[in-house]
Amino acid sequence: MRLSKGFWQTFKEAPNDAEIPSHILMMRAGMLHKAASGLYNYLPMGLRAIQKVENIIREEHTKFNFFECKMTMVTPGELWKESGRWGKMDGVMLKAKDKNDRDVCLSPTNEEAISEIFRKTIKSYKQLPLGLYQINTKFRDEIRPRYGLMRGREFIMKDAYSFVLGKEAQDKIYNEFYQVYTNIFNRMGLKFMAVEADAGDMGDEDSKTHEFQVLAENGEDLIVYGKEGKYAANIEKAITKRTVDSVKGDNELEDFPTPGRSTCEQVSEMLNIPIHHTLKALAFNYTKSGEEKRVLIFVLGDDSLNEVKFKNFFGAETFFPTPLKELEANNLPAGYMGPQDHPKEEIYFDEAIDLDGLYVVGANKKDFHTKNFRPSRDCPQANSGDFRLTREDDVVSTTGEAIEFKKGIEVGHIFQLGDKYTKAMECYVQDENGKQAIPQMGCYGIGVTRTVASCIEQNHDENGIIWPAAIAPYHLYFGVIGKSQETKDLASEIYQELNLAGIETVFDDRGVGPGFMFKDSDLLGLPLRVVLGERDYKKDGLLEIKIRRTGESHKVSREELIPKVKDLLKDL
Amino acid sequence: MRLSKGFWQTFKEAPNDAEIPSHILMMRAGMLHKAASGLYNYLPMGLRAIQKVENIIREEHTKFNFFECKMTMVTPGELWKESGRWGKMDGVMLKAKDKNDRDVCLSPTNEEAISEIFRKTIKSYKQLPLGLYQINTKFRDEIRPRYGLMRGREFIMKDAYSFVLGKEAQDKIYNEFYQVYTNIFNRMGLKFMAVEADAGDMGDEDSKTHEFQVLAENGEDLIVYGKEGKYAANIEKAITKRTVDSVKGDNELEDFPTPGRSTCEQVSEMLNIPIHHTLKALAFNYTKSGEEKRVLIFVLGDDSLNEVKFKNFFGAETFFPTPLKELEANNLPAGYMGPQDHPKEEIYFDEAIDLDGLYVVGANKKDFHTKNFRPSRDCPQANSGDFRLTREDDVVSTTGEAIEFKKGIEVGHIFQLGDKYTKAMECYVQDENGKQAIPQMGCYGIGVTRTVASCIEQNHDENGIIWPAAIAPYHLYFGVIGKSQETKDLASEIYQELNLAGIETVFDDRGVGPGFMFKDSDLLGLPLRVVLGERDYKKDGLLEIKIRRTGESHKVSREELIPKVKDLLKDL
Repeated sequence: MRLSKGFWQTFKEAPNDAEIPSHILMMRAGMLHKAASGLYNYLPMGLRAIQKVENIIREEHTKFNFFECKMTMVTPGELWKESGRWGKMDGVMLKAKDKNDRDVCLSPTNEEAISEIFRKTIKSYKQLPLGLYQINTKFRDEIRPRYGLMRGREFIMKDAYSFVLGKEAQDKIYNEFYQVYTNIFNRMGLKFMAVEADAGDMGDEDSKTHEFQVLAENGEDLIVYGKEGKYAANIEKAITKRTVDSVKGDNELEDFPTPGRSTCEQVSEMLNIPIHHTLKALAFNYTKSGEEKRVLIFVLGDDSLNEVKFKNFFGAETFFPTPLKELEANNLPAGYMGPQDHPKEEIYFDEAIDLDGLYVVGANKKDFHTKNFRPSRDCPQANSGDFRLTREDDVVSTTGEAIEFKKGIEVGHIFQLGDKYTKAMECYVQDENGKQAIPQMGCYGIGVTRTVASCIEQNHDENGIIWPAAIAPYHLYFGVIGKSQETKDLASEIYQELNLAGIETVFDDRGVGPGFMFKDSDLLGLPLRVVLGERDYKKDGLLEIKIRRTGESHKVSREELIPKVKDLLKDL
Repeated sequence: MRLSKGFWQTFKEAPNDAEIPSHILMMRAGMLHKAASGLYNYLPMGLRAIQKVENIIREEHTKFNFFECKMTMVTPGELWKESGRWGKMDGVMLKAKDKNDRDVCLSPTNEEAISEIFRKTIKSYKQLPLGLYQINTKFRDEIRPRYGLMRGREFIMKDAYSFVLGKEAQDKIYNEFYQVYTNIFNRMGLKFMAVEADAGDMGDEDSKTHEFQVLAENGEDLIVYGKEGKYAANIEKAITKRTVDSVKGDNELEDFPTPGRSTCEQVSEMLNIPIHHTLKALAFNYTKSGEEKRVLIFVLGDDSLNEVKFKNFFGAETFFPTPLKELEANNLPAGYMGPQDHPKEEIYFDEAIDLDGLYVVGANKKDFHTKNFRPSRDCPQANSGDFRLTREDDVVSTTGEAIEFKKGIEVGHIFQLGDKYTKAMECYVQDENGKQAIPQMGCYGIGVTRTVASCIEQNHDENGIIWPAAIAPYHLYFGVIGKSQETKDLASEIYQELNLAGIETVFDDRGVGPGFMFKDSDLLGLPLRVVLGERDYKKDGLLEIKIRRTGESHKVSREELIPKVKDLLKDL
């Protein structure tokens, strides 16, 4: 593209609402235009990056015989009523009545629509396995959209759906999608991790699910990574254990005064013992099927609650800390709650607690704690479970690896859905014995526009974006310095040669000064910059190629230019 | 694609609501799935044809330095309020309130959005001319959507917008888009016409506008085509003249009784004169800026009103036949209305009337007409204008060509918009003298999904679709007949060779019988069908290539296959 004939405008300043690098840089580099809160128009430079991502996604899905289709954005309310989700997604669904007074919505996801297509088309096991995907605009009506493309209301998503018969086939196609996703993010040149994730209430109990996380400082997700590379999970899902000791012995229970010391930190400091020799009491109420229950959970003094694990363990729909009044009415003095004198079925010990160890716990009376509490002796028949949040000094439960935390941005998510939707939507097929069978379903998403933003989060410096070649809007920024007609003609010739060689080139023929040009070039961040400088070229006949990522530069003759560019692009 | 691993299902019957060939055939050939009234999911076979159309559009726009962007589908109400169109498009706009209680709508068109981008980005004449386009999903909430992709509610459209300074530049870029559109539809192998069209209230008085019409029996538009090929216009816009004579003379006005004969047909029959020697009176009321006016229009007895011309002539917002009571109150007896005794400013003669000729007109009293009415003598100072609908025995006014009518489907429309939107949206730029100037705008649309449907309207037979190669979902249907492993292996090898040669192939490896296979193949309508028949191949080592459009077939050896296929595809 010749900039003199193109549509591209950079900006010195980012708008006030741009807080993170990808948002700031996409606005400054003229890739986006904000239409309204959470609504972004994609300008040509931005759209090219998005389309590169889309094309990689297409090619990698096609290799595995997954076929592209495209569902409507506006979907009829009836479909959502059939699956039971019509009233349950009001937080993100934009609903309207059409001219015939029928319910419609902008589809935030498409399990129902694809099931409808499936049941109208597929009748026999012979037509399975089936994997279909689409790349389409989605809308989620968040109240507080932010971070540009990272959390917009309208965005582009690839969503795929699979249908198979039987658990084995389900695992097989799941693994294929896992591979497709790995190939996609590898091709894009992103540093990413596939991590075990929490399935929430999406699938069956043994449903597999992984998130694909792009590693970046601004990531909102915390990943638990095994240092030997054998384990990675979202912190919500991570199964790790502590490596701390416990005190053994037969000492008797003993109350002692701890006036004003209501936290484990304060008590362990007073006694001069490690904080993990104390137990922290957490009182929560949760609701399930309309009923409300109270539980008292004990974790090591320096542990904290993993809310997702809590929700899953109890199948809780909502939960909240037990209100003060209720605590008081049940002899649970805040800051001094202990496991004794309470119904055993309300008491839960976290698995990190040594049931035969001795711990300091609350005494159930204000300003007192109890020493030498041994769960197996003093509170037998109580329950246990995995409730705590992974700490960075844990080790992985299965492999024993030490861990570290990494921050990630979720760009992909693969899910086994079991037969939840196929059952609700009556997607029956005939199996090999001519009997009606219900297929297993899977769903697999990639946030296309979010992937572009997270790529920038991972690849930028103080001067601008640093695109991986695979998804850069163009490969190369070609600038010319010098005003003679001879130089301009030469630059035009070189530009055409680059194009003919299939090198996607931004040709800065605007006649702006080198300082301005280099700033724009760095901000846009194409993998390579080539400069034809009139004075230097007259002297030595050489052009300069500069690598955006490393700053490294090469001087080449006109003949060497294209082979060298091609060679450099291979590794960028 | 191997059908054994693909997702494709044909149907014997089309659904009841499918009335026209493109709708019937796309449903039967498994290209579409109906989600709801006017909402269609594009299945893989359908989407491939759509994407081919999209890619041709992209390539041809890029050649002229028009750049792709993508605007949001959900647009803020504020923008539409600024241009004054918020309340004016309720017939097609799907509106909603978002979670923050702001007005939003699904954008049926994007003049406002592109103007907003323009004014935030473009500051100087140096950045012009500018042409931007997008390919995006649009939604028009029609009450009675029909004909499948022809008139759906959700559809894919390419919309482009241009900004220039000055009329000359406006014409230049308009002509470029005209060329782009011509190239696009030529590449697609469609028989089409660019016809002059009516601009309605979209542009200025001298704004140019053309429709691109695909010729097809089921077309809803009537095209007036000059038989020498020098003229083509939509009938709404066509400027043609009649070739009939008129009666000259000085005869006096003479009332005569015509009891019960209220039509020109009846009166001319009674007098045994040509019907075009009578004048038909048409009384209409129209509204403009809140005021209502009545006019009496006279056309030749066998002419009829062109409503678009009427609306444009008077700048009418709405119009309707004058109510009977009002006619009676103003001495205008229905069936016997004449031009005499009425205010001259209310009387309009169509230009086809010879003002010096003698005509039979209504006498303004029931059951009477008047002979020898000479407009220039008997109703001087009355007005005249072009009000009538073109007839097939007209000639073109400018070229004198005889005409014929053709039926067309509007797939593209190009428009000069003048400064209507740029003014309303305050899209100012600096001109060469540093002064503020308002750019001229143009808009240019192609109905992408509609183009696919109209291609099928133009290209089908009783057995199915006949795709032009440029937008066929695949190039070739490759079937194998025979059950031996040897034949299957050979077929697989040939399939791979075809793929490697870049020939997009549907490989029917389902093992179905030839009758079934040929039916499916004809229905899908790829340009070529290749069959490997075990028995024949063993005899003579030849495969059969059949051309879908002509039925012509060729026998070739395996070595000749690929060169022959490539050769045949060039002309399909």
